[in-house]
Amino acid sequence: MVTINDIAKMAGVAKSTVSRYLNGGAVSEKTKAKLDEIVAENDYKPNKFAQSLKAKRTHMVGTIIPRLNSFATNEALRGLENSLRLSKNQLLITNADQSREREIEAISTLAKQRVDGIVFFAAAITPAHVKAFEEADVPVVIVGQSHPDFHCIIHDDEKAGRSVGAYAVANGHRNILVFGVDESDTAVGVTRRNGIEQAFEGHDIDYTFVKTSFAMKDAYEKALEILPQSKATFVIGATDNIAIGIMRAAHELQIEIPNQLSLAGFGGYEITEAVYPRITTVHYPFQESGELAAKILMELILEKEVDLIQTLDNELLIRESTQKNAWT
Amino acid sequence: MVTINDIAKMAGVAKSTVSRYLNGGAVSEKTKAKLDEIVAENDYKPNKFAQSLKAKRTHMVGTIIPRLNSFATNEALRGLENSLRLSKNQLLITNADQSREREIEAISTLAKQRVDGIVFFAAAITPAHVKAFEEADVPVVIVGQSHPDFHCIIHDDEKAGRSVGAYAVANGHRNILVFGVDESDTAVGVTRRNGIEQAFEGHDIDYTFVKTSFAMKDAYEKALEILPQSKATFVIGATDNIAIGIMRAAHELQIEIPNQLSLAGFGGYEITEAVYPRITTVHYPFQESGELAAKILMELILEKEVDLIQTLDNELLIRESTQKNAWT
Repeated sequence: MVTINDIAKMAGVAKSTVSRYLNGGAVSEKTKAKLDEIVAENDYKPNKFAQSLKAKRTHMVGTIIPRLNSFATNEALRGLENSLRLSKNQLLITNADQSREREIEAISTLAKQRVDGIVFFAAAITPAHVKAFEEADVPVVIVGQSHPDFHCIIHDDEKAGRSVGAYAVANGHRNILVFGVDESDTAVGVTRRNGIEQAFEGHDIDYTFVKTSFAMKDAYEKALEILPQSKATFVIGATDNIAIGIMRAAHELQIEIPNQLSLAGFGGYEITEAVYPRITTVHYPFQESGELAAKILMELILEKEVDLIQTLDNELLIRESTQKNAWT
Repeated sequence: MVTINDIAKMAGVAKSTVSRYLNGGAVSEKTKAKLDEIVAENDYKPNKFAQSLKAKRTHMVGTIIPRLNSFATNEALRGLENSLRLSKNQLLITNADQSREREIEAISTLAKQRVDGIVFFAAAITPAHVKAFEEADVPVVIVGQSHPDFHCIIHDDEKAGRSVGAYAVANGHRNILVFGVDESDTAVGVTRRNGIEQAFEGHDIDYTFVKTSFAMKDAYEKALEILPQSKATFVIGATDNIAIGIMRAAHELQIEIPNQLSLAGFGGYEITEAVYPRITTVHYPFQESGELAAKILMELILEKEVDLIQTLDNELLIRESTQKNAWT
């Protein structure tokens, strides 16, 4: 049997677009013509029962977060929740604790709880995720990573990486350490890192990549090991938590920030303003990402047409933890 | 009509005890005799339909948290979730964002979602909460505050307050500032503060209480205003976040910690070890509180007998942000 998913794939559009088309909602002339043809060719008959079920809204929205102790996720959840409340929806949060398996479970749990839609704060999107979302059969918005089959909100991680990298280069730093995470997190482990490395191209940079995790403690321990033998004058932490871990190690090793070592992070977490010296970082609009996710999800539930991808901007905040290279 | 709640009140026992009694579970001889009498006197007939419904477990547990950006809550949730997963239960989290109204709503939302039980991270328990829990009619465990009608897990906040107060006094400090929160949070605003004040009794302490909120930023702004005109040699923040806000203000005002001003907090948040100097604090077993909540809830769901109140211990961690009063 041909499903709505098959039709969407054949037409190269989102499932929600096909759903809108079937329900007489707004789709472009071009899309309509294409769908008319595919539906006719495949003799597709929409499941009327499923369509009527869909009309029964619970006004509950589910969300899946990767971990609890993340400033970024907490801020995004705050934006999401506030917006959902304005439209009289309640949010059920499930924590996957950085386990892919738990994410998949959470998708089906939320579907069983009859949520109207799901917002997924993603580290990666695997075929198992795609399958679980297809089975859940509710509108989905993904925040933090992009995937061609879903409505996604992403941060411009490449730009953020370039901003910090270019700032270090422009301030005369030629020996640079980057504490990053592995590629299982595409946004931070691949895109953000690419941005940093793009900024180094064409300059004679002595560049070392140190792999760590998102945990402050791991960055601290790695830094205790690496900093004493490094000649770097600038160190970039792939997140503010990583930067804070590095800062603690520098304090213990009596390496002065910024006089001996400049330090920058990513995120714009509240804590980067509370420590001394305040940390140079890239401010990400986390709260806005949650608000936008709520807005898009409501539009999808109401079967309106929405762009598949939305990219949010970010901004470098230069503070006291970085300075010009004293040796140039 | 006499309800199970009425029977529980007349007998002065928890509703879960009456439920166990009615289902032939374990209750003490004394309780059994008392309940035999009350049930006979009131001609109470349990609702068989409700009893059989109860047997249908969903293996979903709901929790209500006061806010997202709290290290304490995140750690407790982590313990709760890990323990629930071991017993094959899934956790649905609702955030009340420090609103009593949202807490009440969340109780009925979770009941509608047919959770097997609820863990409530409480700032206060009002009659409206009690009513909502009675209507929800599922086992409840309350973490962080105590109430005679519910199974509660509390921290020994009085002891924690006394530890920090006594440490300041023993180190020769006689002019002490306390940055605290108001009484709407009983554990922190009343019990913890009482503990601190008990330690000052009988000593000639010049003591000032400054009211702030749980937000780091509010403490920072209050401290910017208060510290320049204060002669205090020791400042206590009622939470580690408050202590961090004070520390930032001290840095900006170029007040040296601990040489000019000793600083202590409460909680044992990870960040108190990452800042410089590391902050003297009281370590609370937050993760264990969540694990214990899961254990007690599972016992209540299985209609076992559990003590109404469990008190968790805590421990003063002396670090570099505090020292002997230089002026004594």
